[in-house]
Amino acid sequence: MVAQKAKVTIFDVAKASGVSSSAVSYALNGKPGVSDATREKVLQVARKLGWRPNGAAQSLAQSRTRRIGLVLGYDPQLLSAEPYIMRLISGLGSALEERDYSLLVRMSMDDDDEVSILEDWIATGNVDALLLLNLEIGDPRIELMKNNPQMPCLALADSSLTSGLPTLMSDDAAASGTMIRHLALFGHKNIARVAGPEELGHSYIRDAAFSEITTELGMRYRCLHTDYTPESGAEATKRLLSVEPRPTAIIYDNDVMALAGESVASVKGVRVPEDLSIISWGDSFMNVAAHPPITALSRNILESGRLAAQLMLKLIDGEDVENVEEPPYELIERASTAPAAQ
Amino acid sequence: MVAQKAKVTIFDVAKASGVSSSAVSYALNGKPGVSDATREKVLQVARKLGWRPNGAAQSLAQSRTRRIGLVLGYDPQLLSAEPYIMRLISGLGSALEERDYSLLVRMSMDDDDEVSILEDWIATGNVDALLLLNLEIGDPRIELMKNNPQMPCLALADSSLTSGLPTLMSDDAAASGTMIRHLALFGHKNIARVAGPEELGHSYIRDAAFSEITTELGMRYRCLHTDYTPESGAEATKRLLSVEPRPTAIIYDNDVMALAGESVASVKGVRVPEDLSIISWGDSFMNVAAHPPITALSRNILESGRLAAQLMLKLIDGEDVENVEEPPYELIERASTAPAAQ
Repeated sequence: MVAQKAKVTIFDVAKASGVSSSAVSYALNGKPGVSDATREKVLQVARKLGWRPNGAAQSLAQSRTRRIGLVLGYDPQLLSAEPYIMRLISGLGSALEERDYSLLVRMSMDDDDEVSILEDWIATGNVDALLLLNLEIGDPRIELMKNNPQMPCLALADSSLTSGLPTLMSDDAAASGTMIRHLALFGHKNIARVAGPEELGHSYIRDAAFSEITTELGMRYRCLHTDYTPESGAEATKRLLSVEPRPTAIIYDNDVMALAGESVASVKGVRVPEDLSIISWGDSFMNVAAHPPITALSRNILESGRLAAQLMLKLIDGEDVENVEEPPYELIERASTAPAAQ
Repeated sequence: MVAQKAKVTIFDVAKASGVSSSAVSYALNGKPGVSDATREKVLQVARKLGWRPNGAAQSLAQSRTRRIGLVLGYDPQLLSAEPYIMRLISGLGSALEERDYSLLVRMSMDDDDEVSILEDWIATGNVDALLLLNLEIGDPRIELMKNNPQMPCLALADSSLTSGLPTLMSDDAAASGTMIRHLALFGHKNIARVAGPEELGHSYIRDAAFSEITTELGMRYRCLHTDYTPESGAEATKRLLSVEPRPTAIIYDNDVMALAGESVASVKGVRVPEDLSIISWGDSFMNVAAHPPITALSRNILESGRLAAQLMLKLIDGEDVENVEEPPYELIERASTAPAAQ
């Protein structure tokens, strides 16, 4: 799996020089702590063995840092509640590892902060490429990256949001249709959705698709926006279940909100799936362990991460990258969806 | 929150020079793409405004990379199922951000691979400090770091495992006692534990503490080891519930296994908490949303991450770091624990 592991390490150099590895490190990094004679000997042995640094020194020489930059929005509760980001990081990491690349992660405390981190990376060449997540409509990051074509950049988004930047595309409109038609076949005529933040680009695309398709099918449809946390999902569910006529099905934009929603229904005595069908946009172990297990729109996020890494490595190598579709969604039917009560 | 944000960016330099930011980037990074005249002008303006790079070039000059290294064991299912790592990363990231530090993340495909990544970082100075997680008994990483004191390193572990390396300490023996005594007060005399991997250092410490304390209290105790995944937790639960006399309480070493175990009990018709009490070592939203909600040993992992980051920054600054205790555990009582059936 891991390429280029046969390279000479400082431990090989230490062995061949008859000195400690820390002495070799001091010598090769030009730091004090070893005598000039030792330093000279170590450098000679390192040259002879073909030792090559691959950190900062090599970066300058090759203009390659072997790092991909990723800025995460700082919301510890959300980051840890939802498995999406960790799964994406796993996929990215495993594909990057094959090329000895690492992931440089920073937390942004707000939107301005994220732009300033990206500006810094562009200015300093601290990473070889960037991955953009969670784009908003008119996102300032798009303009920044369009104005700085010297920094390879991939967006993970609907291509309508990315103004021609290389994009790993998600077809959220088609996925919306899959879920709505599943409910329509079960006879549901009054459905609701507990969505993510309204300002996110993919929420906008989902919102539009849901409105259009439910109108086409003659279904009643309501939507409440949240911040993706279980608390906000529970709150939205309470509101939806307290107004008559109650929806007979709710689609949640992530798994933690679906689980929270199912708990709220249970506490309120609303039976799932007899009185209320539930679907989660995004699948995880939580849907399987829930009572009843939750029908979910599943996608191989690990594979998305791997694909994103491979596309960024291509961009770094100067290859052209066409927009690529993410692995397709698939509806996993479980016990939380059933025919609508008449 | 974020310090040192008032620094001059290439966008300031671009504005003052009357050229594009990408031209400034080319000029400052010594890349082709701008005329010599432009380059000269940009460099002059940059000097005048006090622009300073903070990427690779600055690293070499200051011997600082402003990066902390973290190697994650590659198990995508586990990484995404359990909120622990993402919460730790959130805490690390937020504290590092205050000093404009980033987290350099790599995935290790196996133990040898992790050692070779660390060797590479030591050799190249690609990070300013390292964080070690999931130490095993006689872990080769400890010897590697003891032999390379030039690389600051913090371990997150029981201090008996770290041979004097600076350690953010967890008192897992005391925590074991807290849970066992909670069950003893409820009259449980036959308990079991679904533990993590036997080779992990903290499993060893927990195993020893459980044996000792249950013996002291005259309780029957069995333990099965898993790989921390929900599947392995479910499997262990099935085995424990199929042998008479069945335990009246099970403690799980993480939250996803506790949730999986509760599902298994429900399917088998074993009522929680009437027939079986359940405790999760580690708390998360999953325990709250479970039916019934699961009693859990909770700790502020976000704060552990922040503390770890602060200790590493101190080590980088050359300060002495005494071993520090992690934020304490607290038992959160929920509906999954009750008096033992007589």
